Amino acid sequence: MEFTAQQIAAFVQGEIVGDALTTVHTFAKIEEGVPGAITFLSNPKYAHYIYDTQASIVLVNRDFKPEQPVKATLIKVDNAYETLAKLLALYEQSKPRRKGISPMAVVADSAQIGSDVFIGPYAVIDEGAMIGDGTQIYPNTYVGQNTRIGEGSLLYSGVNVYHDCKIGNRVTLHSGVVIGADGFGFAPTPQGYNKIPQIGNVIIEDDVEIGANTCVDRATMGSTIVHKGVKLDNLIQIAHNDEIGANTVIAAQAGVAGSAKMGEWCVIAGQVGISGHLTIGNRVTLGPQSGVISSIPDGKTMMGTLPFEDKGWFKVQAVMKKLPDMYRELNALRKELNELKKDNPQ
Amino acid sequence: MEFTAQQIAAFVQGEIVGDALTTVHTFAKIEEGVPGAITFLSNPKYAHYIYDTQASIVLVNRDFKPEQPVKATLIKVDNAYETLAKLLALYEQSKPRRKGISPMAVVADSAQIGSDVFIGPYAVIDEGAMIGDGTQIYPNTYVGQNTRIGEGSLLYSGVNVYHDCKIGNRVTLHSGVVIGADGFGFAPTPQGYNKIPQIGNVIIEDDVEIGANTCVDRATMGSTIVHKGVKLDNLIQIAHNDEIGANTVIAAQAGVAGSAKMGEWCVIAGQVGISGHLTIGNRVTLGPQSGVISSIPDGKTMMGTLPFEDKGWFKVQAVMKKLPDMYRELNALRKELNELKKDNPQ
Amino acid sequence: MEFTAQQIAAFVQGEIVGDALTTVHTFAKIEEGVPGAITFLSNPKYAHYIYDTQASIVLVNRDFKPEQPVKATLIKVDNAYETLAKLLALYEQSKPRRKGISPMAVVADSAQIGSDVFIGPYAVIDEGAMIGDGTQIYPNTYVGQNTRIGEGSLLYSGVNVYHDCKIGNRVTLHSGVVIGADGFGFAPTPQGYNKIPQIGNVIIEDDVEIGANTCVDRATMGSTIVHKGVKLDNLIQIAHNDEIGANTVIAAQAGVAGSAKMGEWCVIAGQVGISGHLTIGNRVTLGPQSGVISSIPDGKTMMGTLPFEDKGWFKVQAVMKKLPDMYRELNALRKELNELKKDNPQ
Repeated sequence: MEFTAQQIAAFVQGEIVGDALTTVHTFAKIEEGVPGAITFLSNPKYAHYIYDTQASIVLVNRDFKPEQPVKATLIKVDNAYETLAKLLALYEQSKPRRKGISPMAVVADSAQIGSDVFIGPYAVIDEGAMIGDGTQIYPNTYVGQNTRIGEGSLLYSGVNVYHDCKIGNRVTLHSGVVIGADGFGFAPTPQGYNKIPQIGNVIIEDDVEIGANTCVDRATMGSTIVHKGVKLDNLIQIAHNDEIGANTVIAAQAGVAGSAKMGEWCVIAGQVGISGHLTIGNRVTLGPQSGVISSIPDGKTMMGTLPFEDKGWFKVQAVMKKLPDMYRELNALRKELNELKKDNPQ
Repeated sequence: MEFTAQQIAAFVQGEIVGDALTTVHTFAKIEEGVPGAITFLSNPKYAHYIYDTQASIVLVNRDFKPEQPVKATLIKVDNAYETLAKLLALYEQSKPRRKGISPMAVVADSAQIGSDVFIGPYAVIDEGAMIGDGTQIYPNTYVGQNTRIGEGSLLYSGVNVYHDCKIGNRVTLHSGVVIGADGFGFAPTPQGYNKIPQIGNVIIEDDVEIGANTCVDRATMGSTIVHKGVKLDNLIQIAHNDEIGANTVIAAQAGVAGSAKMGEWCVIAGQVGISGHLTIGNRVTLGPQSGVISSIPDGKTMMGTLPFEDKGWFKVQAVMKKLPDMYRELNALRKELNELKKDNPQ
Repeated sequence: MEFTAQQIAAFVQGEIVGDALTTVHTFAKIEEGVPGAITFLSNPKYAHYIYDTQASIVLVNRDFKPEQPVKATLIKVDNAYETLAKLLALYEQSKPRRKGISPMAVVADSAQIGSDVFIGPYAVIDEGAMIGDGTQIYPNTYVGQNTRIGEGSLLYSGVNVYHDCKIGNRVTLHSGVVIGADGFGFAPTPQGYNKIPQIGNVIIEDDVEIGANTCVDRATMGSTIVHKGVKLDNLIQIAHNDEIGANTVIAAQAGVAGSAKMGEWCVIAGQVGISGHLTIGNRVTLGPQSGVISSIPDGKTMMGTLPFEDKGWFKVQAVMKKLPDMYRELNALRKELNELKKDNPQ
C-alpha cells in the first residue's frame, strides 16, 4: 500500500515540511533509506544521515532544525521514535491474517476450535485441546491433550506445547518454543536416578511473548507460571515451579532454576543464571552473565562480566586464590606500621 | 481414579491418623492443598502449613507430632517424600499408554516397527530405521535412516534424530531434542573453512532422559556416547566425540566441548562450560556457571571460573568487594613506609 | 565401496609402505582401528597406537619413522590429517543425494522449485517461496512466505525459516534452527511493553553452516546478515540487526545481542556473550564464557568473566588487572617492614 505524507501527517498529528504528496510504501533505517521509504531521526548521533538519506519521508522531533537543505519530506512530531513504532504496528496490522484449517492438519474430534482460527498443514491439535477465536497456529506445531490456548494468540511453526497447559490471550510463541516438558526432577538411589513424575502444568498468562527455542518446564505439582505481559527472548530456560512476575523482560540464553520466584517489571540481561528456590524482588535489574546465588530485594541492580587481555587474565586468576590471605596480610601490615610509627614519631 | 486413605496406607505400609475413608484423586503441594488432594510434609520449614491445608490426606514422617489439631487425614510413613514419589510414579503408570500407528505418519517400507508402538501423525520413520516394542513416538518427530530406537522409549513431539544413531531402552527425549547433528569440525584454508565430514554417530544408552532442545552431536569418527542412566536437562550442548559417564546429571544450558570424557555420577550445575579434550573424573560436582579449562580428578567439588575448591571460592568472593580499598591501602602503606625508611636510613 | 591402498595412494599422491592390495571400506580413529578401516597418525602423542592398531591402512606424515614393526599398511603423505579430511569429504560426496518431492509435502502453488530438489514428507514450502536447484529439504521443515533458498543447500528436519528471508547457496541448516523469528524489541509503557514490529529480514550468505537449535532473529528494519563462510555451532543466539563477518566461527551457546557488528575471521569460543551495538574487529579471538561489554579492535585476543555488584563492580574491575602487582607489592612491603623492625627493636 502507498501513503502520502499528507495521509501520514494527518494520522500522527504531524507537521509537514516539504512535498505533502510524496508517497511511501515501506520503512527503512535512515542510513539505509531508499526512495519510497519512510524513516525517522531520533538519536542526534544519526542527524548527519538526514542530509543525504534516499528515504522519501523522515519523521523528526518538532525541535529538529536542519543545518543544510534536506531532500526528503519531513514530518515533525512530538516523538519521532514512538511515532515510527506506531506506524510499524499499523503496517503489521494491515497485513491479511491467515484463516482456515488446513485439510492437512490433524484436529482431534474432541478438540474445540474457535472462530476465525488458522491451523496450518501438519499442525496437530490433540484430544481435548481448545483453541480460542482468532488464534493462528502455523505448520508443524503440536498442541497437546487438554491444553487450552486463548484468543488472538499466535503459535509459529514447530512449536511444541505439552498436555494440560494453559496459554492466555494474545500470546505469541515463536518457532521451537517448548512449553510443558517435564521439570528436571530425579531422586538418587544406589543404582541410579528415579524419575519424579512431573504432574503439574504451565500457565502462560495474557500478552506474553516467548522467543525461539525457549523452554518453560511443567511443574512437579501445581503450575509453572509466566504472568501477564512477560517478554522472553530466545533460548531461555524457565524451570519447574518457577513464577515470573508480570511485565518482566528476560534476554536471550538466561536461565532460571526450579522453584524460583521473580517479581514484576524485572529486566534480566542475556546469559544470566539464577539458582533455584530464590526470590527476586520487583524491578530488579541483572547485567549480562550475572550469576545469582541468593535472593535479591526489590529495586536492586547487579552487573556481569568483563574480559581481560588473555595473559593478564591468567595472571589475575593465578593470584585470585590468594585474595583472602592478601587481605589479612594488608591489615596486619597496617597494624604493625602504626606500631612502628608510634615508636618513631616524625 | 479415587483412592481411600485405607487403600493408600496399605500400599505404602503407612499408619492412618484420622478418617480412613477419606478419598483423594489428585496431588498437591501442601501450601496449595485442595479437597480431594493428597500432599506430603517432609521439610520442617513447611510444618505450619499442615494445620490449615485444604488437602484431604497428608503423608508425614513417622516421628511427626502435630502441635495443633489437623483437619486432614495423616498417613505416617518412614519417608514422606520418597513415598510421595512412589505414588506419583504409580499415578503416571496408571495413565493409558498411547498405541497404534497413525495413518498420517510416514513409515518407510524398510523400517522395522516393534509391537505396541505408538507413532503419531506427521512423524517420519526413515529408511532402515528400527523402533523397539512399546516405544512411543509423538507427532512431527523424525527418526533418520538406519537409526535404532530400543524398547519402551518415549520421543515427544518435534524430536529430530539423525541417521545411523543408536537409542537404548526406556530412553526419554523431550520436544526439540536434536540427536546426531554434525559435530562442529572445520579446517581453515586461506579462502575459508573446509568442512570435516562427521561420519560417526551418537549412542544413547538405556534409561537416559534428555530435556527439551538439548543437542548431542554425532562423532567425527566413532561415537559420541551418553551412558546408562544419564539425565540431561534442557538446552544443553554435548559436542562430537564426548563421552558422558553413567548416572551423571547435567543441569540446563551447560555445554561440553568436543572429545571431553566425563565420569560417572557427576553433578554438573546450570550454564557450566567444559572445554574440549578434558577428562572429568567420577563423582565430580561443578557449581553454576563454572568454566572448566583443565581436567578434574575424581570426587572434586568446584565452582567459579578456573573452578576453585568450593570453600576457597566463597572466601575469594567475600574479599573481592574489598579490592578497591585494598589497592588504596597498599599505596598508602608504600608511601608511609618510604617516609619511615627516609627517617631511618640503614 | 572398497578401495585398495594402491588406489588411495594414487589419489593422494602417497607412498605405500606395506601391502599395496590391502583394502578398506570405512574410517576409524587410530585407537579404535578395525580391520577394513583407514585411519591416520598426525599428533605424535598418538604415535604409540600405530604399533597395535587393528586398522588396515594408516595415513602418516612423510617424516614418520616407525620404531617397531607395524602390522598396518602405511601411506606416507605431506599432511596426514588434511589428507584424511580430503578422503572423508570424498566419502561423503559418494553418498547418493536424496531427490524428489514427497507427495506428503505441501508446496504452495505460488512457490518456485528448482531442479533435482529433495523435499521430504511433511515439509511445508509456503506461498511465494523459492527453492534453488539441488537443494535438499528434510521432513517437518518449514520455509516461510517469499523466502528464497539458493542452490545446493541442505535444510535438515525440523528447521523453521520465517517469511521474506534470503538463504544463499551451499548453506547447511541443522535441525531445530530458527531463522527470522522476531527480534526482541519492546517499548515500555506504564501498563506494560508494546511490541515494536520487526519488519526486516535475515540474509544468510553462501557457504554458511548453522548448528542445531541456533537462532538468527530478523531485523527490526533492514537485515540481520550472516556473511559468506560463517560457521555457527549449536544453540547460538544472533539477535536482530547483527552482522557477522565472513569466515567468522562461533562455538556453541554463544550469544550476540542486537545491532552488533562482528568482523571477519573471528574465532568466538563457547558461551561467550557480546552486548548490543558493539563493533568487534576482524580476526578477534574470544575465550570461553567471555563477556564483552565494549567494542574490540582488530586482532585482539581476550577472555575472562567475573560477576559483581553494580557500582562496586566497576571499581573492582578497575583494580582487578593490578592484582598480580598488588601481590608482589604486598610481599615486598612485608619484607621491608621486617627489615625495619629488625633495625628498630621495640
